[in-house]
Amino acid sequence: MPDDKQTKFLLAEDELPTHWYNLNADLEPLGVEMAPVRNPETHEPAGPADFEAIFPEALVAQEMGTERHVPIPEPVRDVYRLWRPTPLFRAHRWEEQLETPAKIFYKYEGGSPTGSHKPNTSVPQAYYNAEAGTTRLTTETGAGQWGSALSFATQMYDLECEVYMVRISYEQKPYRRVMMETWGATVTPSPSEKTQAGRDVLAEDPDTSGSLGIAISEAVERAAQTPTTKYSLGSVLNHVLLHQTVIGQEVRKQLDQAGAGEPDVLVGCTGGGSNFAGFFYPFLERHVDDGAPLPRIVAVEPTATPTLTKGAYQYDFGDTAMMTPMMKMHTLGHDFVPPPIHSGGLRYHGMSPQISALLEAGLIEATSTPQIPMFESCEEFVRCEGILPAPEAGHAVWGARNEALKAKEAGEDKTIVFNLCGHGHFDLSAYEDFRAGELADFELPDEEIDESLAAVPAVE
Amino acid sequence: MPDDKQTKFLLAEDELPTHWYNLNADLEPLGVEMAPVRNPETHEPAGPADFEAIFPEALVAQEMGTERHVPIPEPVRDVYRLWRPTPLFRAHRWEEQLETPAKIFYKYEGGSPTGSHKPNTSVPQAYYNAEAGTTRLTTETGAGQWGSALSFATQMYDLECEVYMVRISYEQKPYRRVMMETWGATVTPSPSEKTQAGRDVLAEDPDTSGSLGIAISEAVERAAQTPTTKYSLGSVLNHVLLHQTVIGQEVRKQLDQAGAGEPDVLVGCTGGGSNFAGFFYPFLERHVDDGAPLPRIVAVEPTATPTLTKGAYQYDFGDTAMMTPMMKMHTLGHDFVPPPIHSGGLRYHGMSPQISALLEAGLIEATSTPQIPMFESCEEFVRCEGILPAPEAGHAVWGARNEALKAKEAGEDKTIVFNLCGHGHFDLSAYEDFRAGELADFELPDEEIDESLAAVPAVE
Repeated sequence: MPDDKQTKFLLAEDELPTHWYNLNADLEPLGVEMAPVRNPETHEPAGPADFEAIFPEALVAQEMGTERHVPIPEPVRDVYRLWRPTPLFRAHRWEEQLETPAKIFYKYEGGSPTGSHKPNTSVPQAYYNAEAGTTRLTTETGAGQWGSALSFATQMYDLECEVYMVRISYEQKPYRRVMMETWGATVTPSPSEKTQAGRDVLAEDPDTSGSLGIAISEAVERAAQTPTTKYSLGSVLNHVLLHQTVIGQEVRKQLDQAGAGEPDVLVGCTGGGSNFAGFFYPFLERHVDDGAPLPRIVAVEPTATPTLTKGAYQYDFGDTAMMTPMMKMHTLGHDFVPPPIHSGGLRYHGMSPQISALLEAGLIEATSTPQIPMFESCEEFVRCEGILPAPEAGHAVWGARNEALKAKEAGEDKTIVFNLCGHGHFDLSAYEDFRAGELADFELPDEEIDESLAAVPAVE
Repeated sequence: MPDDKQTKFLLAEDELPTHWYNLNADLEPLGVEMAPVRNPETHEPAGPADFEAIFPEALVAQEMGTERHVPIPEPVRDVYRLWRPTPLFRAHRWEEQLETPAKIFYKYEGGSPTGSHKPNTSVPQAYYNAEAGTTRLTTETGAGQWGSALSFATQMYDLECEVYMVRISYEQKPYRRVMMETWGATVTPSPSEKTQAGRDVLAEDPDTSGSLGIAISEAVERAAQTPTTKYSLGSVLNHVLLHQTVIGQEVRKQLDQAGAGEPDVLVGCTGGGSNFAGFFYPFLERHVDDGAPLPRIVAVEPTATPTLTKGAYQYDFGDTAMMTPMMKMHTLGHDFVPPPIHSGGLRYHGMSPQISALLEAGLIEATSTPQIPMFESCEEFVRCEGILPAPEAGHAVWGARNEALKAKEAGEDKTIVFNLCGHGHFDLSAYEDFRAGELADFELPDEEIDESLAAVPAVE
């Protein structure tokens, strides 16, 4: 048993998970229905061939496979060793500040080389590509977290990395670019002259600031051109969520180590859904195995991109150019342009189909917050706990605080666990705007969502 | 025994050191002579009274005391729990890249809330001040590492914090300022109108970009004015080095855990000397205790501020305004203005008197490197190990690489351990300049040092 002030719950390196947990294997016992992915043109159910132009076979197999425990290759575990297992913290000082009877724990993924959970999947994606003979990976990045993670991972397996960075971010956030270049990546402001998609946009509007949608189109086009170049995505897809399950497997062990018993609430932030999924899926696994009661599982998203709380559950494209397969998911419509909030990693129109299906099945809840109260929670948190959260992760901080205050109100000794998926060292301009009172809050009008959804072709 | 790929050597929280190791107690058995500190005006040996206007009694007692093991107060250990013990890493991938038979280990202090070793001392300094009834601490900061560490620490014990930040840094590095403010500190560009020292400088040159020397004078002046306001220093002094010895105590245990035997070489970077001292002092302790052979102990400094490699060992002031007591140390002269290299934390004219005396006694070595090869080492390191070193810490990376290549040359299986005292997330503009080929190297001409030293009053 830990002493009553113990703050960090660590696992030794040999306790690093040996397998990823695959939710696809447990859909039936959980009562979850997944709709098939569909070809973007024919709308027919998609097969492996629909993915193999841009992903290597091994990842396509993981995307569609139902093997319950997928072994983590040793060369991947060897890179994970650089920062995993990650610590679970007990937030003693924050609990005191909040005067809550609840116990608050947080898993911290910000200690990875790139500062977030993203390398949990960029590393295996780079590995499987290297094994398949891929020599170059392409991807897009907005704020730079995913681009950094892929730059790092490709460096580990001697692949080239080509990152299309939304032009306005490229210009306004040079440091993330420098970090990617330091890991050997080529970073190109998007739209660029390197692709037809980019040239088309530039011909129309030479001064465009770019968008994630255009950057995806450029990265995908480059990958489709050359057999040894593939594309890599940092969230949304099943295989990405699969790789993130190392997080929750560690949390389960660490809560045991802390003598915390069963958690009452799990909280995470959601953009595409991958850090959240990786954090709680292993609790679904245990539930299937031994019928252990499920904790409440709460997703927190910005009110400015309320995918789960206000989006429709229907088929849509993953990108604005309608090049990706269609997936049934919670969506605001692929044309949706999110307001300029500071949580770049959560500014996405869609949601992982798995997370969407779990919400439909009633296994998880969703809530949302504007960014100002989120930053207020972060400032309180960093003054107690020392760690400066990324604004994305700040949504989970806000959600956990919310639960802690409810427990206080009710006088209940709850156990709350949240995923602090990244640090905010590259987001201090956002904190500066917050402190200067220069942030706006955005509540998205329903009409705007309706309008955006009206442009999505109806597919049953 | 670890498996042969083990990368991280962790200690549980209950292995956090309970005491700091005080070198003052072992000067005699080590054959080290320390000259007394002297009053800046009378040049007479200084007593506690010379310090108590600006430091609380408990810290003055540690500065002068000879108690060999100083107990770490529980409330300090409780804050240390937020990030300590810190990991020791084995650099498998870097060894492979260097094709060296040497084993390379590094202690990583960048996982602290502020990203460096500095909170190891800011936390106890804030604690002892709070205990003594201090309500506000003042300090200076250049690049912002120390200011951040003190802002964090004062927040832990409900003290106010007033940071004087060199004006040019205040303007060029807003993010460190935002970080300090997020922890509740007041950050003032120096020189300011708040102090006589500041007003004098501004009257003469309203557009001055400021200097660390002026900022120190402002912080000290403010502390001397009000009994409940004290001053806090982040390096150089004995009590600061004392607090840092948690680092080396952990390293000793972790090397045992790694089955590494006795290290052959310890490498650290030196500005004022505190991270380096904290890293290797516990090896001196063991040497005194059981006569264990001493490893080679190598300090690495920039050729642009070659305090240990080219400075004189003589009495000098700690600040440019000649307000601090005089100390016998390696110095470039208190008027010395360092070239604008990117390792802001190493741009100091003097060196800790203890480190200086250890060099004189032949117990340690010193070497130096220009910044371009240092950044080359860092780029190689981050591509292998994932962690982006602060430029200051990069000098230790360069030094360790140097030793690893010598071992390769000689075909010797050495064990090299270095202290990676901070991450470089706030130094990416430096990496950008490096990558763009826009960095200059500075080799300081001997005449410039001679000239600067000529201005120091001779005190025997």
